[in-house]
Amino acid sequence: MGIPVETFFLKQGVQGTLQARIQQMIAEGILSGRFHVGEKLPSSRRLAAHLGVSRITVTLAYTELLANDYLTSRGRSGYFVSENAPIPPSYTPAQRDQETVDWSRAIARKFTGGDTLQKPADWRSYRYPFIYGQADPTLFDHANWRLCAVRALGQKDFASLTADYVDQDDPLLIEFIARHTLPRRGISARPEEILITLGAQNALWLAARVLLNRRRKAAIEDPCYYALRELLIQSRCSLVPLRVDLDGLPPEAIPDDTDVIFTTPSHQSPTTATMPIARRHALLERAREIDATIVEDDYEFELAFLGAPSPALKSFDQDGRVIYVGSFSKSLFPGLRLGYMVGSEPFIREARALRSLVLRHPPGHIQRTAAYFLSLGHYDAQIRRMSSVLLQRRQEIERAIARHGLTIAGRGAYGGSSLWMKAPTGVDCGALAMSLRSESVHIEPGTTFFSGSDRPTNYYRLGYSSIPTDRIAPGIERIARAIERHAD
Amino acid sequence: MGIPVETFFLKQGVQGTLQARIQQMIAEGILSGRFHVGEKLPSSRRLAAHLGVSRITVTLAYTELLANDYLTSRGRSGYFVSENAPIPPSYTPAQRDQETVDWSRAIARKFTGGDTLQKPADWRSYRYPFIYGQADPTLFDHANWRLCAVRALGQKDFASLTADYVDQDDPLLIEFIARHTLPRRGISARPEEILITLGAQNALWLAARVLLNRRRKAAIEDPCYYALRELLIQSRCSLVPLRVDLDGLPPEAIPDDTDVIFTTPSHQSPTTATMPIARRHALLERAREIDATIVEDDYEFELAFLGAPSPALKSFDQDGRVIYVGSFSKSLFPGLRLGYMVGSEPFIREARALRSLVLRHPPGHIQRTAAYFLSLGHYDAQIRRMSSVLLQRRQEIERAIARHGLTIAGRGAYGGSSLWMKAPTGVDCGALAMSLRSESVHIEPGTTFFSGSDRPTNYYRLGYSSIPTDRIAPGIERIARAIERHAD
Repeated sequence: MGIPVETFFLKQGVQGTLQARIQQMIAEGILSGRFHVGEKLPSSRRLAAHLGVSRITVTLAYTELLANDYLTSRGRSGYFVSENAPIPPSYTPAQRDQETVDWSRAIARKFTGGDTLQKPADWRSYRYPFIYGQADPTLFDHANWRLCAVRALGQKDFASLTADYVDQDDPLLIEFIARHTLPRRGISARPEEILITLGAQNALWLAARVLLNRRRKAAIEDPCYYALRELLIQSRCSLVPLRVDLDGLPPEAIPDDTDVIFTTPSHQSPTTATMPIARRHALLERAREIDATIVEDDYEFELAFLGAPSPALKSFDQDGRVIYVGSFSKSLFPGLRLGYMVGSEPFIREARALRSLVLRHPPGHIQRTAAYFLSLGHYDAQIRRMSSVLLQRRQEIERAIARHGLTIAGRGAYGGSSLWMKAPTGVDCGALAMSLRSESVHIEPGTTFFSGSDRPTNYYRLGYSSIPTDRIAPGIERIARAIERHAD
Repeated sequence: MGIPVETFFLKQGVQGTLQARIQQMIAEGILSGRFHVGEKLPSSRRLAAHLGVSRITVTLAYTELLANDYLTSRGRSGYFVSENAPIPPSYTPAQRDQETVDWSRAIARKFTGGDTLQKPADWRSYRYPFIYGQADPTLFDHANWRLCAVRALGQKDFASLTADYVDQDDPLLIEFIARHTLPRRGISARPEEILITLGAQNALWLAARVLLNRRRKAAIEDPCYYALRELLIQSRCSLVPLRVDLDGLPPEAIPDDTDVIFTTPSHQSPTTATMPIARRHALLERAREIDATIVEDDYEFELAFLGAPSPALKSFDQDGRVIYVGSFSKSLFPGLRLGYMVGSEPFIREARALRSLVLRHPPGHIQRTAAYFLSLGHYDAQIRRMSSVLLQRRQEIERAIARHGLTIAGRGAYGGSSLWMKAPTGVDCGALAMSLRSESVHIEPGTTFFSGSDRPTNYYRLGYSSIPTDRIAPGIERIARAIERHAD
């Protein structure tokens, strides 16, 4: 591809003749790696007109660069970056002169420094990746997703692809979620009670911003999804972590002055505990008593291969106090960034206005592609395929764990894609994970999920959604051996 | 497509026999519009297993529904929703029982009620749509965008499509922006100085959150993009609107205690004024003097068909105090939701952490598609095609305006896609726009762009990016006649 003439500017305040400055400008483009071998330069006529210099000046500069082997010419077809030019392997712009802004003062709010989980970018190169929440290419229905994407790119859908929806959503996707997805969870909702979000993370963030401020109190599960805790810390509300038990969040532990309760009844994150129906009713009753709202993160409900999942908490909600968060990240793929929230109209109206300020709306093409994938039945087929494979992997991982005497601290009653594990007291799972890397095993240390200063370090999470079934047993064996070494 | 068995739940606390409850559940699904004509019901065996009832109970319920013409059976292939079933045209879930939550109390922060521009969703049906910022299907290179999207959906790109990037971006897109897009604006930046955003709106929002709080002051242009003003009001900083002149923002008007200056030097929004180079230097000097940062929104720089655009303010920035915001919304299409920001590393690090909390990252597939479209040269070709058409439209609209004696209050020196217009004092352009609707003419009233309580009402914006060239003259004629009527 040609180098666009618009990328050439003569720097102000530089010494030298016009010709020398043009030569230097081109040489700098080459030396910094900005121009690649074989790329074509603008014609001398075009460059001269663009820079407002005479054509002979540009021609002389080109001739000089030709002599220095920065450029080659191919007869009448023009000038190209030479194969012999000294080009670095990647583009590295010159460092700016000393910057004078004091960023420690200029930055009004800090967002770095919170808890994050280190997911290795190269996890695909691990032989035993017990990673959580990444897509398995062997399970994804690539061909049909592609067909749906192409269909959503068709002329007929041009408007839905390209339009500025301002604060609206793709009506096709909303209709499908209302008619098919939510009924699976026992939920009925009108379109004005549904908002499409950029994944569940975005839904949780929107809910926190609308429902919380400095004077409000939020109850969270402990342990919980660390990114939820981080965004609540940023909202500056006061935060009460409540230790979960084998049935999830205990309603009686919720303080009287709580305004918002964040909970994961289907699969507690990260322990995978399933909240029994009776406790769901008790939780709603407790919320009514203290007039709190509830944000229900119903992630992974689709991966129910051990039994039918319980209806969502939201399905029992007569008062309208539950805000329901769903996501396609686990069942389709996380890079999709598509989720949704369901709540009473006054709440959704504020969340929609906030979303509009922050990002307007999720991209139209992605919404339409998902709508097709869902409505043509590919999604259901995909879930069935994933479920049958995850069932095999779950059985395999439980067998291997039993064989090596490892301790399961939590497992989803009707499925899921991970197990919550406990190592012997004294084992630091951060160090354990680090040392397992050298054996090409990836596990997730559990410490960051806990709140407070005295966090347990002997928990870890084993995802089984991205590891081939036949790698599970040898992977677990390596983990067991490593735990023995670390327990010494 | 079949109705998934998972969408059936027996409601608790409902009167009647099991058979009657199953019948009612299915009838309700049909009556609410949730099930469509021809959709297949689960087999009696599957539904019975799912609900935990005997198969004969389900069979009896189906038989009864068959007799009532809610269902039909097709021999051995099962039960389907009957063509004669009383199905409403759209799905309308039952209204919930009286909700008891007091949302006026539960909502901690309000986001509705701000200034927005009413863009009619049906603008494509207008004969004379002088609308701003929407895509024109006749100008977009649909075929090549589609090819790039399909390529980005290929097996080779599976990881970039599906992966959870956590807080990272598509390296291919970042590299292209650094090597090709930014040099067009005279800017050089390293990858760690660039962040991909969900459109320019998202970039402006991130910058405001990082740089402002209650104790800080922001200077904005007056008039300015109303959504920028709204997001700054939400950040609770103090806000100083500065009246722009024909050269854009006057640097000497910026108060000494300003922390952040928001400006649009290339095309002032909405007046389209172009800031001369000398004033750009003066603006940087003023910012240095008072130690303020600058957020430069460089929207529409690509649409330069009347002359080469000036280098961006950021290109003169030695101190690192300019944060540059770019977008592909105007040159590709707004529904894409893809923009970027460039700034010093400490700033980008905070913005990245905030973006990660709010939405993680823009969808991988869209980033990769744009990277291909850009790097294969389609983007440049698209800009050239758009520019030549916009040049024709610009000439046509200026001719028509001159013929009818309308007043241009601002026009971009090197291009753009809109004109800023002034009606005679006393004409209310809100009412004008409303009455023009009946003639199928869409114009944008200018009042919402102004700050303060005493806003001028006699300005309007004419977009020419989505109106066919031959409709411009008759459209302008209608506007001129309407202004005459309103000026009486």
